[in-house]
Amino acid sequence: MIETPYLLFLGDAPDQLSAKVAQGIKDWRPENSVGQLSLPGCGTDVGLKEMTLAEAKEAGAKTLVIGVANRGGIISQAWKEVLIEAIEMGYDLASGLHNLLRDEGDLVAAAQVNGTTLHDVRVPTVGYPIANGIKRTGKRCLAVGTDCSAGKMYTALAMDKVMQERGLKSTFRATGQTGILITGHGVPLDAVVADFMAGAVEYLTPDNDEDHWDMIEGQGSLFHVSYSGVTMALVHGGQPDALILCHEPTRKHMRGLPTFTPPTLETLRDTALPLAQVGNPNCKVVGISVNTQHMSEDEANAYLKETEERMGLPTVDPYRHGAERLVDALAAI
Amino acid sequence: MIETPYLLFLGDAPDQLSAKVAQGIKDWRPENSVGQLSLPGCGTDVGLKEMTLAEAKEAGAKTLVIGVANRGGIISQAWKEVLIEAIEMGYDLASGLHNLLRDEGDLVAAAQVNGTTLHDVRVPTVGYPIANGIKRTGKRCLAVGTDCSAGKMYTALAMDKVMQERGLKSTFRATGQTGILITGHGVPLDAVVADFMAGAVEYLTPDNDEDHWDMIEGQGSLFHVSYSGVTMALVHGGQPDALILCHEPTRKHMRGLPTFTPPTLETLRDTALPLAQVGNPNCKVVGISVNTQHMSEDEANAYLKETEERMGLPTVDPYRHGAERLVDALAAI
Repeated sequence: MIETPYLLFLGDAPDQLSAKVAQGIKDWRPENSVGQLSLPGCGTDVGLKEMTLAEAKEAGAKTLVIGVANRGGIISQAWKEVLIEAIEMGYDLASGLHNLLRDEGDLVAAAQVNGTTLHDVRVPTVGYPIANGIKRTGKRCLAVGTDCSAGKMYTALAMDKVMQERGLKSTFRATGQTGILITGHGVPLDAVVADFMAGAVEYLTPDNDEDHWDMIEGQGSLFHVSYSGVTMALVHGGQPDALILCHEPTRKHMRGLPTFTPPTLETLRDTALPLAQVGNPNCKVVGISVNTQHMSEDEANAYLKETEERMGLPTVDPYRHGAERLVDALAAI
Repeated sequence: MIETPYLLFLGDAPDQLSAKVAQGIKDWRPENSVGQLSLPGCGTDVGLKEMTLAEAKEAGAKTLVIGVANRGGIISQAWKEVLIEAIEMGYDLASGLHNLLRDEGDLVAAAQVNGTTLHDVRVPTVGYPIANGIKRTGKRCLAVGTDCSAGKMYTALAMDKVMQERGLKSTFRATGQTGILITGHGVPLDAVVADFMAGAVEYLTPDNDEDHWDMIEGQGSLFHVSYSGVTMALVHGGQPDALILCHEPTRKHMRGLPTFTPPTLETLRDTALPLAQVGNPNCKVVGISVNTQHMSEDEANAYLKETEERMGLPTVDPYRHGAERLVDALAAI
């Protein structure tokens, strides 16, 4: 559990894309951040108030979150001065970089002296159990994709937001670095040891009120040969009651796999649903989330309409049009 | 790579079952062991010549393999005297126990002083890559089961043995502790970090001669919610050309999951084949391996005959009747 509120460290991020972790926190949990901190030369801005470490501390910030991914995921020397100063002022640090905070001797030493915590969200800190498959109370929704990076995290966050707005019981359950930094907790599933993957998902989505929904962040794809095992652990460990199919229609090949063609939505449905029903016989496919970012408004609307008619399921781009109809579909379960 | 030949350490194993690792080595790679070493009170025997450490050393033994699993998988104090003496005589040690050799200070110290190696085969020692899905040369066969412990390792070892006897090119590829100790190398797949599982399988089964078969040891089951992610990584990382369906017909529920019913062979076929064809469009289901150990000879024969007619695939219990017909089926690909 990472203590909030945060101060978001943008460092010397060259562009908007490199600050996507900070942007995600700002977009989805604006209440979790008091401000942002940039270094000279920073080429981006997530729209929060620029603050010094002292100003943010005064405003209540508990954790300095590294909200930027630089080339190679390393912790640059240019950042070190600020990070150590933050530790000395009592900040915890949180990072999702490949280069772990705990591998930097000067940060570790400073944290020990000042009694603060270094959170490397890529590294599991819990001894997860082996999954037992026992049916849990409450309900769970999982987004599954025809490919990686098809909008699964965005879909789960957008649905959770609508649920909250409607006063329904919902919790976004993070399974990746960005999601964990956004919400302050979760399971870094791709870093969990194989035997414990499904158990980690069970741990993440425990018994709950009968009318509570866990909106589980998906990972990988059942059709992506590099990561399908991680997806499978979510499909079985998550015991989903509802699946949302996620698709990016303009993709020519599977991400990082030039010779692999993405499956159709029909194939995804016919593959994912029977597998999910092994863990939860009542699971249903309830809706489709399409990432239309590379389509014009007209193209997007035509594609969504055609897909909805063909598949017989509510079909939306939650970024363009909101996730309301997907949440409506959940209510019917 | 664990150096052979071995001396098999049986310790104070109370019964045959607790010495199954030693028995597996004796059954499948008899040429890898010069003898066995028991402690007073040992209640089993794998049929090798009983030897002292000195006698086995004289006979060429390089590694003392802990061939016994005791309660809790721990390294008992009663064993320590022998293990340290072995290290001092220049033996490497190899173990698949949960309790790692490397966590025992006295063994580590002795190994350092004497320049010998401690092999904990549960722990990956290679930095496996992310899978790239690129088609590899050579052929691969994977056993998939309706449940865990349905005979997948036995099937792959038995098929490999027949291939060797026929002078065909075949390599058994171990993916679990017992398999690794039997052959001296492999990947402990259930201990690999999630993101690297499929890459570890690619690493294990590299490019090879066009007429060479990797007989890949299966793990878990696509229908076992605790371990299905590991199985999925084998189905995609292994790029199998041939699948063997493995089944234990008397099982009432999935192993360790009292409320889960094993699927039929038809369901296993219809689930595993399309998933395998994502990684290798030419994959085929070529045969069925049934574990009939809990059936009489008549029951077994009737079940095998009925299944073969129903499924239209060669169906054998390789333990009762040999794996010849499964290897014949490979030859047709």
